[in-house]
Amino acid sequence: MIIHLKPNVSVDRASQLAKENKAFHVTNGDTQILVTGSGIKEVPQSLVEHTDQYWVFPNDMQLSSRKYQNEKREVSIGNVKIGGTNNNTIVIAGPCSVESEEQIRMSSQLLIKNGLTTLRGGCYKPRTSPYSFQGMGLDGLKLLAKMREEFGLTVITEARDATHIDEIIEYTDVIQVGAKAMYDQGILRACSKIKKPVLIKRGFGTTLQEFVQSAEFVLSGGNENVILCERGLRTFETGTRFTLDLCGVAWLQEHTNLPIILDPSHAMGYAYGVPALSKACTAMGIDGLLIEVHPDPSVAKSDASQQLDHAQFEKLLAELKPVANSVGYNII
Amino acid sequence: MIIHLKPNVSVDRASQLAKENKAFHVTNGDTQILVTGSGIKEVPQSLVEHTDQYWVFPNDMQLSSRKYQNEKREVSIGNVKIGGTNNNTIVIAGPCSVESEEQIRMSSQLLIKNGLTTLRGGCYKPRTSPYSFQGMGLDGLKLLAKMREEFGLTVITEARDATHIDEIIEYTDVIQVGAKAMYDQGILRACSKIKKPVLIKRGFGTTLQEFVQSAEFVLSGGNENVILCERGLRTFETGTRFTLDLCGVAWLQEHTNLPIILDPSHAMGYAYGVPALSKACTAMGIDGLLIEVHPDPSVAKSDASQQLDHAQFEKLLAELKPVANSVGYNII
Amino acid sequence: MIIHLKPNVSVDRASQLAKENKAFHVTNGDTQILVTGSGIKEVPQSLVEHTDQYWVFPNDMQLSSRKYQNEKREVSIGNVKIGGTNNNTIVIAGPCSVESEEQIRMSSQLLIKNGLTTLRGGCYKPRTSPYSFQGMGLDGLKLLAKMREEFGLTVITEARDATHIDEIIEYTDVIQVGAKAMYDQGILRACSKIKKPVLIKRGFGTTLQEFVQSAEFVLSGGNENVILCERGLRTFETGTRFTLDLCGVAWLQEHTNLPIILDPSHAMGYAYGVPALSKACTAMGIDGLLIEVHPDPSVAKSDASQQLDHAQFEKLLAELKPVANSVGYNII
Amino acid sequence: MIIHLKPNVSVDRASQLAKENKAFHVTNGDTQILVTGSGIKEVPQSLVEHTDQYWVFPNDMQLSSRKYQNEKREVSIGNVKIGGTNNNTIVIAGPCSVESEEQIRMSSQLLIKNGLTTLRGGCYKPRTSPYSFQGMGLDGLKLLAKMREEFGLTVITEARDATHIDEIIEYTDVIQVGAKAMYDQGILRACSKIKKPVLIKRGFGTTLQEFVQSAEFVLSGGNENVILCERGLRTFETGTRFTLDLCGVAWLQEHTNLPIILDPSHAMGYAYGVPALSKACTAMGIDGLLIEVHPDPSVAKSDASQQLDHAQFEKLLAELKPVANSVGYNII
Repeated sequence: MIIHLKPNVSVDRASQLAKENKAFHVTNGDTQILVTGSGIKEVPQSLVEHTDQYWVFPNDMQLSSRKYQNEKREVSIGNVKIGGTNNNTIVIAGPCSVESEEQIRMSSQLLIKNGLTTLRGGCYKPRTSPYSFQGMGLDGLKLLAKMREEFGLTVITEARDATHIDEIIEYTDVIQVGAKAMYDQGILRACSKIKKPVLIKRGFGTTLQEFVQSAEFVLSGGNENVILCERGLRTFETGTRFTLDLCGVAWLQEHTNLPIILDPSHAMGYAYGVPALSKACTAMGIDGLLIEVHPDPSVAKSDASQQLDHAQFEKLLAELKPVANSVGYNII
Repeated sequence: MIIHLKPNVSVDRASQLAKENKAFHVTNGDTQILVTGSGIKEVPQSLVEHTDQYWVFPNDMQLSSRKYQNEKREVSIGNVKIGGTNNNTIVIAGPCSVESEEQIRMSSQLLIKNGLTTLRGGCYKPRTSPYSFQGMGLDGLKLLAKMREEFGLTVITEARDATHIDEIIEYTDVIQVGAKAMYDQGILRACSKIKKPVLIKRGFGTTLQEFVQSAEFVLSGGNENVILCERGLRTFETGTRFTLDLCGVAWLQEHTNLPIILDPSHAMGYAYGVPALSKACTAMGIDGLLIEVHPDPSVAKSDASQQLDHAQFEKLLAELKPVANSVGYNII
Repeated sequence: MIIHLKPNVSVDRASQLAKENKAFHVTNGDTQILVTGSGIKEVPQSLVEHTDQYWVFPNDMQLSSRKYQNEKREVSIGNVKIGGTNNNTIVIAGPCSVESEEQIRMSSQLLIKNGLTTLRGGCYKPRTSPYSFQGMGLDGLKLLAKMREEFGLTVITEARDATHIDEIIEYTDVIQVGAKAMYDQGILRACSKIKKPVLIKRGFGTTLQEFVQSAEFVLSGGNENVILCERGLRTFETGTRFTLDLCGVAWLQEHTNLPIILDPSHAMGYAYGVPALSKACTAMGIDGLLIEVHPDPSVAKSDASQQLDHAQFEKLLAELKPVANSVGYNII
Repeated sequence: MIIHLKPNVSVDRASQLAKENKAFHVTNGDTQILVTGSGIKEVPQSLVEHTDQYWVFPNDMQLSSRKYQNEKREVSIGNVKIGGTNNNTIVIAGPCSVESEEQIRMSSQLLIKNGLTTLRGGCYKPRTSPYSFQGMGLDGLKLLAKMREEFGLTVITEARDATHIDEIIEYTDVIQVGAKAMYDQGILRACSKIKKPVLIKRGFGTTLQEFVQSAEFVLSGGNENVILCERGLRTFETGTRFTLDLCGVAWLQEHTNLPIILDPSHAMGYAYGVPALSKACTAMGIDGLLIEVHPDPSVAKSDASQQLDHAQFEKLLAELKPVANSVGYNII
């Protein structure tokens, strides 16, 4: 249940009422809001007099639900506003992993050349083997920060586990919760205490309901800037790396109020399919794309097969614009 | 292995050579072709003198493979040509099931009004329960034939099992092999002996490789007019009915030479998501869409939740055209 | 809804009432039974006076349901009774495919030597490629019949599609509906008109509910001798061929009254895992096992990797007996 | 590649060689061992003179592989040895969540009464919703420690994320890495630095290969005491909670040298199926079972439907013993 308290209830009083009712307390503008589990179907007796408005829900998709707030939330990624009524499809691009200053600078220059604003690059790689390249760690974060400084780019990178979440929060503009970390409450709770945008990737074995509930961890802790990112399910099909779930995207668009960014690169796993998939995603009227691009994919230290080279990327970008326009959106 | 025999080899001689080598014999224009299993990597001694050209393959995707024929095959659905270099996205529409003459006439009129040519409607429904509506059977086929007569439409319907495949072949213009029947050799072999187009739906538990090999049953029997139709996989996600595999579509576009039609209605299972998904499919540059539309979905005898009503369908059609155009295709 | 009609209602009258109410009519001993869809929750007015007893159901699992008949059904496979209160675990064995008279005689001798009664062997193989070995067809069926004659064995083989179901019914003692044919109504309806036992394999992409509803096709047509066979789901895991669903077996034991036979060979896909899996299955208190065994697996024309050789099979059989005994069952 | 260095190479020298070759350095008894990625197929030049023996691998399953060490590893859980040649099937039992001192004492008494030694109970629950019961946290850990003190029990509990892994390591005897945390390198690396046994649960969307590679994170860090725990995959089947992958267990038994414990409770999700599944697991000759049991499942704060009550548990325990014996194992 979500309860909007009456305007005369102070922040402190709201906080106290939350504690007494084992509820979460969040503030939206001047509105004090309590959120309980969805099992609560009637306003608790002690809250009746303080309640301005309330919503009951069939399950724990509450703050993220269109039943609560029908308008899509707006989130700012640097100077770019997505969601809301902006009809922007932001293209976030960069290499799978930050590998060197030279490499990440080339990626930054590619973005600038094409009028893009937001650079991705992994520093803590969630590799499944201890014997693979694990990412540059803090050194990588510092390179991303340097690119921000040098080019005025917004940077996004992934938290692999809770041990380095503080560094990620310090060095980057948008925090990415990786697919393998989607259930990581250490990360989610840390992200709920800040105001920087959080992009949560759907786990490849995760239901839509669970995916949205991960967003509820962040929203109920007080951070409204949550973006959902679908990046493919693990299915029996092995001809492609994962199976991008666009039926799920239609479901998210219908049921949730959160902006949605799609990652065709990880879903497909092969560069040849990224352009067609990117167009498919764009035609759904989505808020952004995450695309992996590398100065020379053949020598990439991770995910070599799925990264576009710069020429392929620029060709794709040109092709995406009319597709976005055909559904009333702009590539930005 | 595919072997193109020399021009001087007669049809009868080719047929005899096929038998001697346990190969399939198909004819393409004047070319006599033998097809063996892909395990054969060298031209058999007795065929060397008759061989004009040959191809070896890593697996049994042979006639359908881009390695054999890189150009996409062209197939005619009534007067509409798809595949090849036509860049047409045909919209095939109609109700899930043929339910009555009145209903199927309303569907036909909807198509005519919107300049469409091809009517779908199920007569033998592959229901999973014996207690559900099983379709009108032969009576339904006759209604479809009547609509063809009356409106000049092309009709397509589904074969559920081999017991009525002869009726389907007799009464319809395009034979649909349903997802649950994709492995049905009784149906596939019957379809390989005719020249009418065959649309094969991918089983929801079927790999891409197996899907294409179903097409090989038809192609190796001598029918070149095969269309592939992706309609969603069964995954762990139950918020939607199935999971449309657009990564798989990218794979098919890359590896096969067959036209591809997509079915967003069955994949999604809910009308609300069909428009966004249809746009996604269209933006991939595909050869057609199968969309379920019913004069009054609320009373439909099967798949009520996923059928569009006429107004929703016309709105979607208007929205699809610019999307198709944005990737160089035309809705037809 | 299932309705037991009063004893004074004749077979003909019952048949007429069924037609009037669009219900199935089956007879169990002297009891005339009508079965409607599960959507019917109240006895139709015209049937009230004829109704002795009735059952309503939440879904179309009706005749197979423990809610209707709590005792497990008994089915005879030759002279062996399974299900009911027999606590027999029948071991059905033989090669994947019948390949030659010599081969199938060696398999028969293996069974006889080990006191087993039921021989399996595929004649119409549901291969996914037209270029693979497709089975001996009718010649294979005749070899199975010869083995029955010669050794007094019971034989079971698989129907691949409806075009040869009459042959299968004529030549074999138990009709196997293959996993890929589980939805094939041509096969299921043909099997519902006979009294020979029908073993239905679960499709690898099929839910438990759909699986049991396939049995309802046979049961509602009048054949009570239905056996369910779990043989593995297709999942993302590719280290093994399929994923044997023993949770599903526990579900079937709880909810249905049908005997259950398991097929560890197809599930595993590798001979090394068949013994451990067979023991796991047996410890659940099941009614039978289907095990692939071949005189020389290395030269088998299909499924070479998963077939045991004779020595491995005999070792397994010896190990299975104490496991069966430990849960109160007998290997037979 | 795994390299056993010659006996004359000191620990310090080995450590230095590891650094120079970007390898992991572990010690087994007196043997100094280097482990590189499996991409290395030849002993690096600088190591040739120090190499006593080496193994190359087709993939990153190295220390855990039967190709490296064919004998199953032995791990001690309190006084109980599993794996090796012990043929013990340890039954670890207790409630899903530690809820109160009274509850966990009743569970402890149940174990003692039945001669069992190892108590499970969740303190940090990896719930998918922020609005569900999240576990007692540190208070729960202290209750488990109290039970150890009071009853001499060994205790095992789950790490949810890296923020509390130090507490878990301090308070418990066996560290459980939960299914949702299986990729959590924060947890895995912390576990690799200790000697307490680590039980890693397989993620429900995780391949066998990835599962074993999680163990490699712990093994390559220097902790040899790793146990694998299969607890069910997420598949399309929703009649049961998950799908226990016993084919996968056969694969693990064939390919890895690690002890295996199975968790039928989470796989099934319903108490009715736990006994039959537990017997199935036991008949495979496994090293242990994790079974959820609660004094009163109907009031449990999590996973109420799948927990056995005490009477059901004692009945099951009695039934398991002969099954274990039938395959040469002992329930302990």
